[in-house]
Amino acid sequence: MRDALRRYRRACDYLAAAMIYLKDNVLLTEPLRPEHLKPRPLGHWGTCPGLTLVYSALNRLVAETQQRTLLVTGPGHGAPAIHANLWLEGTHAEYDPRLSLDGSGLAELVRRFSWPGGFPSHLSPEVPGVIHEGGELGYALATAFGAAFDDPDLLVACVIGDGEAETGPTAAAWHSPKFTNPGDGRVLPILHLNGYKIASPTVCEAMSDDELTAYFTGCGWNPLLVDVRDTDDPDSPLAEALARAHRQDSGPPPMIVLRNTKGLGLPSTSPEGTPLEGTFHAHQVPLDADQLSAVEQWLRSYRPEELFDADGVPAPDLLAVPPEPELRLGRVPQANGGRLRRDLPLPDVAAFAGTEEESPTEALGGWLAELVRRAPDTFRVVCPDELQSNKLGALLDVTDRQFDRAVPGHTEHLARRGRVLEVLSEHLCQGWLQGYLLTGRHGLFPCYEAFVSIVDSMVNQYAKFLKMSGEVGWRAPVASLNYLLTSDGWRQEHNGYSHQGPGFINQMLTKKAHTTRIFFPPDANTLLETMHRCLSSTDLINVVVAGKQSSPVWLSPDDARAHCRAGTAVWPWASHGGSPDVVLACAGTTPTAETLAAVQLLAAAAPELRVRVVNVVDLLSLCPPGRHPNGLSDEAFAECFGEDVPVIFAFHGYPSAVHEVLHGRPATQRFHVHGYLEEGTTTTPFDLLASNRMTRHDLAADAVRRARGWSSLGGDLARDFQRQRDEFLAAAYRDGEDPAEITGWRWKR
Amino acid sequence: MRDALRRYRRACDYLAAAMIYLKDNVLLTEPLRPEHLKPRPLGHWGTCPGLTLVYSALNRLVAETQQRTLLVTGPGHGAPAIHANLWLEGTHAEYDPRLSLDGSGLAELVRRFSWPGGFPSHLSPEVPGVIHEGGELGYALATAFGAAFDDPDLLVACVIGDGEAETGPTAAAWHSPKFTNPGDGRVLPILHLNGYKIASPTVCEAMSDDELTAYFTGCGWNPLLVDVRDTDDPDSPLAEALARAHRQDSGPPPMIVLRNTKGLGLPSTSPEGTPLEGTFHAHQVPLDADQLSAVEQWLRSYRPEELFDADGVPAPDLLAVPPEPELRLGRVPQANGGRLRRDLPLPDVAAFAGTEEESPTEALGGWLAELVRRAPDTFRVVCPDELQSNKLGALLDVTDRQFDRAVPGHTEHLARRGRVLEVLSEHLCQGWLQGYLLTGRHGLFPCYEAFVSIVDSMVNQYAKFLKMSGEVGWRAPVASLNYLLTSDGWRQEHNGYSHQGPGFINQMLTKKAHTTRIFFPPDANTLLETMHRCLSSTDLINVVVAGKQSSPVWLSPDDARAHCRAGTAVWPWASHGGSPDVVLACAGTTPTAETLAAVQLLAAAAPELRVRVVNVVDLLSLCPPGRHPNGLSDEAFAECFGEDVPVIFAFHGYPSAVHEVLHGRPATQRFHVHGYLEEGTTTTPFDLLASNRMTRHDLAADAVRRARGWSSLGGDLARDFQRQRDEFLAAAYRDGEDPAEITGWRWKR
Repeated sequence: MRDALRRYRRACDYLAAAMIYLKDNVLLTEPLRPEHLKPRPLGHWGTCPGLTLVYSALNRLVAETQQRTLLVTGPGHGAPAIHANLWLEGTHAEYDPRLSLDGSGLAELVRRFSWPGGFPSHLSPEVPGVIHEGGELGYALATAFGAAFDDPDLLVACVIGDGEAETGPTAAAWHSPKFTNPGDGRVLPILHLNGYKIASPTVCEAMSDDELTAYFTGCGWNPLLVDVRDTDDPDSPLAEALARAHRQDSGPPPMIVLRNTKGLGLPSTSPEGTPLEGTFHAHQVPLDADQLSAVEQWLRSYRPEELFDADGVPAPDLLAVPPEPELRLGRVPQANGGRLRRDLPLPDVAAFAGTEEESPTEALGGWLAELVRRAPDTFRVVCPDELQSNKLGALLDVTDRQFDRAVPGHTEHLARRGRVLEVLSEHLCQGWLQGYLLTGRHGLFPCYEAFVSIVDSMVNQYAKFLKMSGEVGWRAPVASLNYLLTSDGWRQEHNGYSHQGPGFINQMLTKKAHTTRIFFPPDANTLLETMHRCLSSTDLINVVVAGKQSSPVWLSPDDARAHCRAGTAVWPWASHGGSPDVVLACAGTTPTAETLAAVQLLAAAAPELRVRVVNVVDLLSLCPPGRHPNGLSDEAFAECFGEDVPVIFAFHGYPSAVHEVLHGRPATQRFHVHGYLEEGTTTTPFDLLASNRMTRHDLAADAVRRARGWSSLGGDLARDFQRQRDEFLAAAYRDGEDPAEITGWRWKR
Repeated sequence: MRDALRRYRRACDYLAAAMIYLKDNVLLTEPLRPEHLKPRPLGHWGTCPGLTLVYSALNRLVAETQQRTLLVTGPGHGAPAIHANLWLEGTHAEYDPRLSLDGSGLAELVRRFSWPGGFPSHLSPEVPGVIHEGGELGYALATAFGAAFDDPDLLVACVIGDGEAETGPTAAAWHSPKFTNPGDGRVLPILHLNGYKIASPTVCEAMSDDELTAYFTGCGWNPLLVDVRDTDDPDSPLAEALARAHRQDSGPPPMIVLRNTKGLGLPSTSPEGTPLEGTFHAHQVPLDADQLSAVEQWLRSYRPEELFDADGVPAPDLLAVPPEPELRLGRVPQANGGRLRRDLPLPDVAAFAGTEEESPTEALGGWLAELVRRAPDTFRVVCPDELQSNKLGALLDVTDRQFDRAVPGHTEHLARRGRVLEVLSEHLCQGWLQGYLLTGRHGLFPCYEAFVSIVDSMVNQYAKFLKMSGEVGWRAPVASLNYLLTSDGWRQEHNGYSHQGPGFINQMLTKKAHTTRIFFPPDANTLLETMHRCLSSTDLINVVVAGKQSSPVWLSPDDARAHCRAGTAVWPWASHGGSPDVVLACAGTTPTAETLAAVQLLAAAAPELRVRVVNVVDLLSLCPPGRHPNGLSDEAFAECFGEDVPVIFAFHGYPSAVHEVLHGRPATQRFHVHGYLEEGTTTTPFDLLASNRMTRHDLAADAVRRARGWSSLGGDLARDFQRQRDEFLAAAYRDGEDPAEITGWRWKR
């Protein structure tokens, strides 16, 4: 077995190196000539031998124990090693017959890597067994834990490069075991400590064995140190550690620190004397294409002729190494989680609807609690310690925050098992949820609006993963990634400027149209309906922005459903007059309330002004239909906004987001958008609105100033409105609160 | 002394609680009545007593040792405690006479906290001694290290809440000592372990003393555990630990784990029996305003009448606690770093200019190397292990990567002292640099373009800090935060889709106009000139996007200077004909090259077409002047783009960014922007351009299709261009590289 494993690794290492360099003569049946090389060899060699060492050791563990295992590969740039293993175990051939286990499949595999139209140089959704791309470093470990939650029979092995180990998200993720319990699968991290990142030694390399042991022990692990740098049998000590880890069933969970030689198998130096094996020079393409004979010598050192027959078929002993087909790492069903996904048993929203005044998130909390009751093991809520602050506390009546450690002090709603995962790290929340969704489950991420930007780059990468997955035929749709952004900037009188930032909306607008939705439900009932739709959807990133303060319920459940279906609609009950002189549009809880208050100011001061109110719940419905699937038809758009009437738009976020979605619609100059102008501090809501020029008075003044046919009258009225605003403001500064007339304002139908 | 310290803390705790609740009767000289309370009590009590415990212990250390000390407060929401200390030490009165050390100043202080127009509820640039806001958690420790670099006589004490300790950026920052040396100041972290975040116990609370010791020992610290939960003399053990830490001059650096009672001083329960002191219920406003007698009882437990005389002047023993004025924490000069800032001795760029072909970043590397020679202790480069990959390696000819650990293997350019800090954590790079800049120094952050989004939220907060600083009279301007974004998405043939993402540009567009600049120098000489301007500027966030591949030098140093001054300009040497039929505009290295290639295609295929080329180096110069200070005047804009001629715009990033900056200019429908459409993989540059419709052929086709007066002829020509593109593409797929004609293309003047 030891020999077979070694030969198996030799074959994989050869294939990985061949993928980086060769487009032809892939088995070196002829002398290597320049035309056999890819025009520009591409790839990362350094981590490949180590990945194969781990992959093949896991093969052995799986074969011996029948343990269903998912591999999360942090160093996704080591894709050649994973491809080699997938090909040799036959998984590649199953997914794509052109990658058959013979010379033609081998040639196709080698050539396709890093080739236009072929496999990317990193892991990606096109690769079987993969739920993690690994291009941007830091998220492998959290993703692995996400995959393990609620899947007690699964082992998730996770390779973490020592470069990746320098990132913050990885450093935070080492504490994840405190959040898991026996109802979850097990995560086995393997820190691949090969000493170097691109150009320098790593932080972990600079740590002594004692420090590494102390660090991981402190994090709550049982670290097993395996050093294979000076052995010619690396398989045995690693296999032993894996077996020991697998056997261990109590105490701190095991993790492995694998000290390895970077780029093992390379010549020790290049022809010009640069040290290669075991140094950072092994990281990428270690030998230049013009060092042809050195490349050939290196490739031939694997003696491919001993590993593949003349037709390119791997030797029988190699084919015997991988476990039985259903247990192969590339075939694990969890890696194509859409296949495992079942629709959630979503409760009907009507029973949770509000009537007069309601906190939207509080209403949602009740509905989510019922959902948790019905879906006890396929739905999770991740949150950075803000569940109660976001008024979703009703959830905790039916479940708890999952935490596996007993703490001596006073706690509430904390238990070993629970549907809620709260940790003060948006990175961990995001990583856990990604792993959970990609393995076929469902979830929700409620977050302070301003702080969701902490995961901007993770969302960038996740959006790419979704986009690519949609282009891969065999990937089944996964549940959407749902954000509930609340504790929004307009109501941060408690915390102030640092907590005010709606930039995530703009961030999402850069994504592919078919991966993104952005919703601004204006009240509790519309939030319920919106969330029902989001939790039924697949392959999307849904951003739902909703208020948590008690606020008017504008729409009945039926009206809310119709409104969500429309995306954007006229609110006739709030409009008056016929063909409008001005349209007041709004998106978001606070802008909607201010707009309706402006309508009342206008009705009192200028009753003859014809005003139409349009509410936008689906921001992307404003896009021209050619740009976004949810975009209103030209006719529907014109029914809402007319063709040439001025539109005063009160928007929850930066005004630029509205201009962006409107781009391509006709006559957009008539849209005058009020929104967040990046002015803020700890102050009253009215003061905050005033400093961003979005009070009811600002909106009313803008409306009369711009309304068709009101140029003469409008100016005076506008000045009146502004005077009134300034009086309110002065009162706020004097009394430290908004005048009662403002905060206690009610819409009179 | 022990008594005075205790009374001093009592006074601070009283003041902090008073700030949260009171607007009047601030010394409780009368019975407490509802009208004395703020309309809505706001603030975070839980961390306040601990912050004062630390502040006063540092006072004592400073008084005894004369150690110049800067305090970085991670829990910025504990602002009441810091305000109380600043007032009692007299710093507040120095900065604002209305905060005098008497009853009137005390009343002003108490009322001003969390009051419209007053102090925000978090720390902010308005507060003396502050370089860190602490609203978004995670960045205190990295910022503290940034402040310490190159300032060997400074002690930076850094309080980290145990909530903040759950974040990734903090977890990564614990490894920072590996990057410091005796040429830097010392950072003394104090983990304020009071057990709870908003609603739950913290991860650190769940760790045993052994685990905490192991964890921090593993990170390379000498952890000193101080538990003051069960003592009535918390000052002595903390003072002892601080003294021990200060004395220690070898071995792993000391850090303190301070186990403390959350919200110490509160009643143990509320009137309705909710446990308060020592629980998460102490986090914010622990007693409701309507529990008036409980509030009064609590406040009176501090016996303010023993601490302040009838006029509100603090007792003499309290005033004797803080150290001499120049050494007070609120007065430390480093906290107003602009005062310490000296202009950099920037080398003239002409000596580093290129002529024909040049890698922009390589040219910059040479110039930066000369700068490092001239500024050996006030300029640093932070980078996530990408310096050489970004072709800035020339820097390493004159300096090294600073790393304080010996590693056994092969290293290059690694030394105990050096100007370069490389760590594979964008969070650490950003935090270090922020601390370095805010304490009066200069720096540069070169980063892979796609991965700078990792610090989106940190930049959000830093932009807010800058914006607020600009509104504070006594804050002197600090050096700008300069990003060099390279290894950009158009040239990621090596890495692929995950490495392609220009969203940071959109992110920066949400910022206040006066804090942001975004530059696209089209060649090496313009990059040199741009960077010269950025490193001379203050109080800005400069984003410079530049190529690293060898590429044509379009402008002489003089022309580059003129171009940077203009921001956007016609390139007459690339244009032909008189009044143009079409304008080809471009921003970015790759789009500029493609645009000029398109011009040549057009010149050959349609010589009579009058084409004007406009290059944009300063993106924000496209904004209307009312929206951005760099915005071109209407006349200058019309000189570049005409008034009604079609503009084909080739842009480096998402097209939406161009539409956004153009918003408010007349007739923007004539701008047809090509840019990154979120299509990518590992492929050739030409294929990537094609999938995003920005090849020279796409641009030329769009130009002839839209050019004035070319509607009949244009269609055929456009089809020809597209056919040519498809042929090139087919060749790329067949041969695995761009046809030589594309990659080897040269502009013929």
